[in-house]
Amino acid sequence: MNEPNTLTIEEMASFCKKKGFVYPSGEIYGGLAGFFDYGHIGVELKNNIKKEWWKAFVQSREDVVGIDGSIITNPKVWKASGHVDCFEDIMVEDAVTKERHRADQLVEAKLKMAVDGLNADQLWKLIHDHKIFSPKGNPLLPPKQFNLMFSTHVGPLETETSKAYLRPETAQLIFANFRLVAEHARMKLPFGIAQIGRSFRNEIAPRDFLFRCREFEQMEMEYFVHPDKTNECPYMDEVLDYQLLIFSAVMQQQKKEPQEMTVKDALQRHIIKTSWHAYWLVQSHQWFVKLGAKPENFRVRQHLPDEKSHYALDTWDLEYKFPFGWKELQGMANRTDFDLQQHMKHSTTDLSLFDDETNKKVVPHVVAEPAQGVDRAFLVFLFDAYTYSKEREYIVLKLHPKLAPVKVAVLPLVNKVNDKARAVFNMLKAEFTCVFDKSGAIGRRYARNDEIGTPYCVTIDFDSLDHNDVTIRERDTAMQKRVRIADLVPSLHTLLSSGSFKDIPGKMVQQSSTSSTV
Amino acid sequence: MNEPNTLTIEEMASFCKKKGFVYPSGEIYGGLAGFFDYGHIGVELKNNIKKEWWKAFVQSREDVVGIDGSIITNPKVWKASGHVDCFEDIMVEDAVTKERHRADQLVEAKLKMAVDGLNADQLWKLIHDHKIFSPKGNPLLPPKQFNLMFSTHVGPLETETSKAYLRPETAQLIFANFRLVAEHARMKLPFGIAQIGRSFRNEIAPRDFLFRCREFEQMEMEYFVHPDKTNECPYMDEVLDYQLLIFSAVMQQQKKEPQEMTVKDALQRHIIKTSWHAYWLVQSHQWFVKLGAKPENFRVRQHLPDEKSHYALDTWDLEYKFPFGWKELQGMANRTDFDLQQHMKHSTTDLSLFDDETNKKVVPHVVAEPAQGVDRAFLVFLFDAYTYSKEREYIVLKLHPKLAPVKVAVLPLVNKVNDKARAVFNMLKAEFTCVFDKSGAIGRRYARNDEIGTPYCVTIDFDSLDHNDVTIRERDTAMQKRVRIADLVPSLHTLLSSGSFKDIPGKMVQQSSTSSTV
Repeated sequence: MNEPNTLTIEEMASFCKKKGFVYPSGEIYGGLAGFFDYGHIGVELKNNIKKEWWKAFVQSREDVVGIDGSIITNPKVWKASGHVDCFEDIMVEDAVTKERHRADQLVEAKLKMAVDGLNADQLWKLIHDHKIFSPKGNPLLPPKQFNLMFSTHVGPLETETSKAYLRPETAQLIFANFRLVAEHARMKLPFGIAQIGRSFRNEIAPRDFLFRCREFEQMEMEYFVHPDKTNECPYMDEVLDYQLLIFSAVMQQQKKEPQEMTVKDALQRHIIKTSWHAYWLVQSHQWFVKLGAKPENFRVRQHLPDEKSHYALDTWDLEYKFPFGWKELQGMANRTDFDLQQHMKHSTTDLSLFDDETNKKVVPHVVAEPAQGVDRAFLVFLFDAYTYSKEREYIVLKLHPKLAPVKVAVLPLVNKVNDKARAVFNMLKAEFTCVFDKSGAIGRRYARNDEIGTPYCVTIDFDSLDHNDVTIRERDTAMQKRVRIADLVPSLHTLLSSGSFKDIPGKMVQQSSTSSTV
Repeated sequence: MNEPNTLTIEEMASFCKKKGFVYPSGEIYGGLAGFFDYGHIGVELKNNIKKEWWKAFVQSREDVVGIDGSIITNPKVWKASGHVDCFEDIMVEDAVTKERHRADQLVEAKLKMAVDGLNADQLWKLIHDHKIFSPKGNPLLPPKQFNLMFSTHVGPLETETSKAYLRPETAQLIFANFRLVAEHARMKLPFGIAQIGRSFRNEIAPRDFLFRCREFEQMEMEYFVHPDKTNECPYMDEVLDYQLLIFSAVMQQQKKEPQEMTVKDALQRHIIKTSWHAYWLVQSHQWFVKLGAKPENFRVRQHLPDEKSHYALDTWDLEYKFPFGWKELQGMANRTDFDLQQHMKHSTTDLSLFDDETNKKVVPHVVAEPAQGVDRAFLVFLFDAYTYSKEREYIVLKLHPKLAPVKVAVLPLVNKVNDKARAVFNMLKAEFTCVFDKSGAIGRRYARNDEIGTPYCVTIDFDSLDHNDVTIRERDTAMQKRVRIADLVPSLHTLLSSGSFKDIPGKMVQQSSTSSTV
């Protein structure tokens, strides 16, 4: 069943470059590790992914609203969130190999004691006094602080007080704006606030193409619930029978395989602890699958106790089977009221909400935060769409029509029908993202469109002039149907909304009949 | 005719905060000058503006494709573009008042000589040797370099070689990717490459709310033409009769008023020099007007000779009459082949294209670059939509339906019809961005929706239960029409596509008849 993905990440990067999906950023200057530019096809796919997420998680829900926060914000936000202090490592360099190591880890390994909270000078004194060397036995250079946040300076002075950061996550902008949004949007618990936008992490070793970049885009939602109702999701009926491949912490510790089970089972067996957690895991899983990802390539994995962030009560990752292994697509932590409490403390602003039922102020809990990378989702949809066709001898990209960068290609079969084809194109382009492609053999043009995932090609031939009809060709099957031009717009609407040839008027045609006109 | 805009920018900022459009970023920490967060209503308006621009300038055009480049790219891009050297000022500080001044300007004023190209040390020596003081007569502190680009460091080391920049414009990402995109998208001259995304400039004095921020978003296109055909726009028929309010350099120098004239006149009188420049000015003007901006608030102003950038042959700004004066919305420079030549030189990569007609390689010229700020467009649409209604005694935001954050509000008039209203809401929300609002007096609910620009309210009353009909209320006129629920979806589609009540079936109703049911 689970056919292994034979395409490597390097091959995917090469395909993406060749077809105009993604380039190394500043490629003519040799690129820059961990930064990428999306090309003319890639930008459309990426925009479609963001649009579908926003529609599913924000616009179609009454309990979620969005925001769009700035990338640089008041640095106190990152002090409150813990990123200034906890997102920072003190690194020492091997004087010979230039490899970098975390100073605290070397000291702890040598002295067999915890050195939490020591600063760089204190660590360096220990390294010096106890003659600690690098793992390769070389001397170490004095420590340097290394925070994963990119820092910069705002204003004309480069001082400690002008220091600011590129956000390492979009989540904190949501917490910092929590009260303003809750009040102005008149939200009642439970509710969510979502955001899509770039984040930045100065990864020591960016790798695996778009998987671990230094600049990336997030689609993130924080879902707030009443602190006394962290297990009362009112939408459970919709998800109880949903099947998930579950890999709990216990299964991992006991070296068992992940198990497929329904949400109902997982909750009854206390594998997933809260209904909210289960609900949002299903929403995220479902979102991918509805947009054409293969369900067998997903699983949900619980964080092991020592893996959880300091603020998290329970964390589940939605994972995807990449060619380089099962990897996190989405981390979904139960963050409790940690973040709001931190911001209340640091800003001395009351971020509690008034609860009508109990007549008390409450600080809401975040029971789950569906937070995922756009770039990782981009990879998932490409991997699951990428199909080598033996008959056609090239790649067919079976993207869901909603994600496809181009929806319809209009192809005149011969020069003499160009005017007619253009009239058809002008009619279609008001409704769909279309291309008009008149150059090259028809087979080459089909291939070009199959390779970037265009779901339908419309070909115009000599018969079109006399009979006012055209041929629609389906990307995935290469089947063709003859359709009246008058029916073309509604027919394509039907097909693009997950309809099939049997749902539209017209006559199926033999493929050879069209290819003979090439 | 040109009714002056009486709303100040401060009042607009306050309206934006109150209604959930825009907040100071990190407001609970006192904000950060030049940075803003878009709230739950603002994010939708901003997304709609970007979507409409992308549709008009990219997706509906065969000659333009898009990209989405990274914010941090290889720093050599900014060396080649001139931003590392020319975007930099050397500043000295008044030791008493702490005011900052450009060092070269103080030296030039004192010594009456040009000091172009001197570095900080050389300038400091002159200041020292010639005993130059600040304009207030105080001693100066040693100079510091101040580049308007935000800088950061990529990787674990903070050295000169790890220095990188947040892009100060999206344009250079287009130039750096020019060859890859031109080839992979198989573009033929003339063609454009467009991009929407954040840019950053470390402005000394950010001001006027969203008008001059340190973090802002751009919608930018570079349009490339054959160097021998910089005046051959094939689309001129569409724009010759278009009227623009023109303020040429000559008019400015002779202290004349701007003149309204057709594009045809402006070209014949050599006021606008190239057809391409005129064409793109019209496209940009038209884009604003089609989306509801008031044509009388726009003019095109030519840069004075000493105002042009070093690379520009001719520059026209599209300007808007803000409450604080006529200001640039969009700078449109004829950049010639300056940028591509710079990148060819610095990257030693051939960025020329092969011209089929002449069988020669050519380096294309950028004759015009419609480049504008999303945040400024956001302000324009808000200013032109903002209307105080004397009858209603509150603000009605007359946003174009395509830009409106919410398209339809569903309002049950009494509790007993809530189920019916919810059924209507569920039907509508699959098609439109809707809200369901059942709390408060109906007048208050109308006001709430008028203030954020919702074009239509659908009210459900007791009669709806018996007759399966509802009332549609129009934001701008407060007129109402009774419509069958079965006709509701197509009727709203018609209305939202610039239709009016006369285009849909149903019966006009007296406003009093509905208000009496409140």
